[in-house]
Amino acid sequence: MNVQSIIKADETVMANAIRVLAMDAVQAANSGHPGAPMGLADVATVLFNRFITIDPADDTWPDRDRFVMSAGHGSMLVYAINHLIGYDDMDADQLRNFRQLGARTAGHPEYGHAKGIETTTGPLGQGISTAVGMALAERMMNARFGDDLVDHFTYVIAGDGCLMEGISQEAIDLAGHLGLGRLIVFWDDNGITIDGATDLSTTTDQAARFRASGWQVDAVDGHDPEAIAAAIERARAETGCPSLIACRTIIGKGAPNKAGSHKVHGAPLGAEEVAAAREALGWSLPPFEVPGEVRASWRRIAARGAAARAAWLERKAKSARTAHFEVALAAPDRGALDAVMAVHKAQLSKDAPSVATRKASEMALEVLDAVLPNLVGGSADLTGSNNTRTKAMRSVTRNDYSGDYIHYGIREHGMAAAMNGIALHGGFVPFGGTFLAFADYCRPSIRLSALMGVPVTYVMTHDSIGLGEDGPTHQPVETIASLRAMPNLAVIRPADAVETAEAWQIAACSASMPTVLCLSRQNLPTVRRVHTDENRTARGAYVLREAPDGRDVTLIATGSEVEIALAAADMLASGGIRAAVVSAPCFELFAAQPEDYQEAVRGTAPRVGIEAAIRQGWELFLERGDGFVGMTGFGASGPAEDLYRHFNITAAAVTAMAKSLVRKG
Amino acid sequence: MNVQSIIKADETVMANAIRVLAMDAVQAANSGHPGAPMGLADVATVLFNRFITIDPADDTWPDRDRFVMSAGHGSMLVYAINHLIGYDDMDADQLRNFRQLGARTAGHPEYGHAKGIETTTGPLGQGISTAVGMALAERMMNARFGDDLVDHFTYVIAGDGCLMEGISQEAIDLAGHLGLGRLIVFWDDNGITIDGATDLSTTTDQAARFRASGWQVDAVDGHDPEAIAAAIERARAETGCPSLIACRTIIGKGAPNKAGSHKVHGAPLGAEEVAAAREALGWSLPPFEVPGEVRASWRRIAARGAAARAAWLERKAKSARTAHFEVALAAPDRGALDAVMAVHKAQLSKDAPSVATRKASEMALEVLDAVLPNLVGGSADLTGSNNTRTKAMRSVTRNDYSGDYIHYGIREHGMAAAMNGIALHGGFVPFGGTFLAFADYCRPSIRLSALMGVPVTYVMTHDSIGLGEDGPTHQPVETIASLRAMPNLAVIRPADAVETAEAWQIAACSASMPTVLCLSRQNLPTVRRVHTDENRTARGAYVLREAPDGRDVTLIATGSEVEIALAAADMLASGGIRAAVVSAPCFELFAAQPEDYQEAVRGTAPRVGIEAAIRQGWELFLERGDGFVGMTGFGASGPAEDLYRHFNITAAAVTAMAKSLVRKG
Repeated sequence: MNVQSIIKADETVMANAIRVLAMDAVQAANSGHPGAPMGLADVATVLFNRFITIDPADDTWPDRDRFVMSAGHGSMLVYAINHLIGYDDMDADQLRNFRQLGARTAGHPEYGHAKGIETTTGPLGQGISTAVGMALAERMMNARFGDDLVDHFTYVIAGDGCLMEGISQEAIDLAGHLGLGRLIVFWDDNGITIDGATDLSTTTDQAARFRASGWQVDAVDGHDPEAIAAAIERARAETGCPSLIACRTIIGKGAPNKAGSHKVHGAPLGAEEVAAAREALGWSLPPFEVPGEVRASWRRIAARGAAARAAWLERKAKSARTAHFEVALAAPDRGALDAVMAVHKAQLSKDAPSVATRKASEMALEVLDAVLPNLVGGSADLTGSNNTRTKAMRSVTRNDYSGDYIHYGIREHGMAAAMNGIALHGGFVPFGGTFLAFADYCRPSIRLSALMGVPVTYVMTHDSIGLGEDGPTHQPVETIASLRAMPNLAVIRPADAVETAEAWQIAACSASMPTVLCLSRQNLPTVRRVHTDENRTARGAYVLREAPDGRDVTLIATGSEVEIALAAADMLASGGIRAAVVSAPCFELFAAQPEDYQEAVRGTAPRVGIEAAIRQGWELFLERGDGFVGMTGFGASGPAEDLYRHFNITAAAVTAMAKSLVRKG
Repeated sequence: MNVQSIIKADETVMANAIRVLAMDAVQAANSGHPGAPMGLADVATVLFNRFITIDPADDTWPDRDRFVMSAGHGSMLVYAINHLIGYDDMDADQLRNFRQLGARTAGHPEYGHAKGIETTTGPLGQGISTAVGMALAERMMNARFGDDLVDHFTYVIAGDGCLMEGISQEAIDLAGHLGLGRLIVFWDDNGITIDGATDLSTTTDQAARFRASGWQVDAVDGHDPEAIAAAIERARAETGCPSLIACRTIIGKGAPNKAGSHKVHGAPLGAEEVAAAREALGWSLPPFEVPGEVRASWRRIAARGAAARAAWLERKAKSARTAHFEVALAAPDRGALDAVMAVHKAQLSKDAPSVATRKASEMALEVLDAVLPNLVGGSADLTGSNNTRTKAMRSVTRNDYSGDYIHYGIREHGMAAAMNGIALHGGFVPFGGTFLAFADYCRPSIRLSALMGVPVTYVMTHDSIGLGEDGPTHQPVETIASLRAMPNLAVIRPADAVETAEAWQIAACSASMPTVLCLSRQNLPTVRRVHTDENRTARGAYVLREAPDGRDVTLIATGSEVEIALAAADMLASGGIRAAVVSAPCFELFAAQPEDYQEAVRGTAPRVGIEAAIRQGWELFLERGDGFVGMTGFGASGPAEDLYRHFNITAAAVTAMAKSLVRKG
């Protein structure tokens, strides 16, 4: 018996180890999803045993294969495998404490909680869409650094839910269009969803659907190791396009009475069925114990990976591109970035251009592009409107991955997920644009950026009624508040070109916080006429113009409304009322300032907040008696100036409100 | 020459009328999208001239065909047609004032702004997905009332953007699965998007994609009237499945120099090109003037529609089902509903069950189902978790549309859009369920519910960390705040079964405001033990337990945290501190109460807000010095009780905070 046949003979028991660990962990937790791990055990075993190259000794090794469990509720599949392969942070106690507070084994795989989890999954469709970004980043890195340094696969297991979610279409279309031959998706075709049989709600021919978007498609018995392996071989051999392997599986396979039913999807099997499964699988050991020889079989995968990594390290040591490779993977050179930005800001303060902040963003990007060689731009088909493409950027195509601008198409959700994947893969600093109102279209992926702490930058232009004629469907009113509500997300709404440059400084250097830039369609004057090297936007809010000899009122505004605040302050001054003007580009950063700084900025005089949006969230600056000039409902279609007048967001309105507060006070 | 050939001979000039009106209106507005209306003029002319049955004299006639311009930026197509057909609210002045404030001719078609606009479009993909709901409602009404009363088509024009958005896949899959043979979609296959040629970002074979989901697909030259008409005939003849007609068009056709380029997509042609187009089209009249004979041709469509409506009225007068039909279309019988709900509430207050509010919602639905015969339920594949299906509900299938429960599949976005369509069509009161965290997946459609004022009810369960082990991806933390931010949306988070019943009373009778119900996974005690006929939830917030002899502190809580507030009040009482407890199920309704009522509820004593979510939005109740017990970041995976302790959302924490405030105050 040669080594290869030994390995294959082991696979049944290797898969059963997954099944038993999964059912036992779910049983111990008394909650969770045993069906997917049990049904997928054979597919995953063949994939890991024969193909996947990872080294548990270095879970951040750049050239490892990426594995994404898009059907995140089947998290025990990942935990069981990572335990068996030998990640040092995934011992049996972690499995025993599945879904318990403080355990690495969260209900769904959480990026950063345990090694070998490449991305957070659970919200369906996100994994497959994030993986598209990973696979794209791999090819883009390969184009820059060659096969010696970058040459790996991205494998995804997706369930019916992943393929029913609309985001999957955006991902499939994008992956097919870009010919991502290193992306291989396994579809867990078990015919079961939570409500029952899939034919309750879908009759789509998934194979035909994927083929329509340029994928290679194979269909196999998901419990036949040789068929699975042959399909993976074919998928790997087809380098011109991504591959789908439809795996017909029996959900909960191994549970003799409940397998094949939606009852094993999201509930423990129960003690009786667990015992029956043990019997059926010939597994006599108590929970969380695995025979030494089975462990040894799984550990061979780690050994193979270690050898691959050693070989890679040798190649890297010899490569002429190593230095550049490491720069790409490292954090941005903050010193260089600050230096060029200081020059840029000084020039802006001097020139005092009147430009839309979307245009100012493009100007900042031109500066960044020179010091951040791995900046990767893109837009959801609004390039000219979002101003996301610098002069030097070249399109990424299926024939040439060396470019750095991605045409994401009219697919905001797919774009956001792909950006998460690009950032998670490493090597690039991704940003992408759409209209701010369409943040809603990609919100589930923005939430994952924030939850994972992935520093993606969302360039969201047309940030208020100031976009004018396109009307209420396109006018953010509640959007800024809804984004400010999200934890760990920096929402920056700059007032002019200087603040926009500062916002980009923050975004480009962020280590673990994504950024949304809210940018105007309309031109705005430069309000920062005096240059400071200091990034004042990083304070979140600051006194842009202090009132001489004490304040009668403080006007606090963001973005395009800072201009209105300044005009109102002038009007008030002519009436003998001393108004300070605070620019407040980022609430999250302001909230992180020391309390005394915050108090000094807010002042003790009455305040008026000004933002062409709803008031929610302004309690950071305003007390109940303070005033607010903004929106209370949806916008309307008309020229921007007409809308500002119609909704009474004007210097005159601010002045009137300030006067009435000062009179009261 | 017979009548039919006269009609056909007219079509070129009828289409050119659309082209000229569109280019002139965009030119006058100096903004807008001439490309789509000009490119689609031939398709739309054939569709309206030969097929569509509408009567401008009654734009609410229930059996009219529905026409949805999913590519909403091409709004001038709709306005031009409605002007030409003779809607009395669409005179030439409206066209002259295209995209101006106060005009009915908003940048994108806005439901309720003008007659003949069946739904608001502009955010891409929404129109086609809303139309699926309309087409489904048509079949469901047909199953109930027969061909005599309900027998019409739903026509959609969709652009490349609509088909690239992920929501379209959810809609296509659902429509194909349900075999919606009365749905006919025209794809404006012009090969152009804003960034340039579609092949920059997509290579999907759309015909194959639609066929994979069970659609009939035809491809025609979109400028060949006979080919278009033949395709529509085939589509109408195929009643077993929806149809796609891929129309190869030239964007901006009629503009001799700019047609076929992305430059005509979203910018005026310019005076010179407008003149050249006039020349090329042989159109000598000044802007907004249309030859009398062309108008007459278009008016024939109205005449045909008027005759059809007259015939329908005759059939209706004779139908045995007319009375029921009118009940279905009328507002719910509020008296009957209030009566049964009063009985239900009294029983609940007496029995004081400890149930999850998701279960209480099911109990309320059982009551509603008896008095609201046209209630239509559904869930995005979480029926058992959302508790959305009453005992009497039967599944809607392609073979039997007489049911009243829709398996929307794992397609929250498609579900929400379809519910908008069902509500807009008329005849049903739709509601649908998913987990609250996945409100993000359907937020663009929720926004349209709110913007249009469509009274859809979103049943969103698992509304906090109280869902436990599924972890942070599934735990809403910022979701409630982000929904409260949206104008014209009632977000109700009931504390017990009584408030849940009251919430359903509000939702079911809402005329123009959609509702989101935020419901617990975990059991909650009945806090409303004393029955009131009055719907206290309708006040938004109310004093659930007053402090005897004046308040030292007011505890204000929502949903599952009301129980905690009550326990804290008891603990405080034992320490001699008099605490009132306010239940605040709906912020929007509370904000609409008279100021003195609001002040009385809030009181003047220090306040503690309690909600297992972020504080944003609580300024409605709290001042800066007040306390808040809730979340400040994402949740975690673990049993619910552990999480509440871990995040310190407990009666002890509330008590401690209240004590410290009382001491300070």
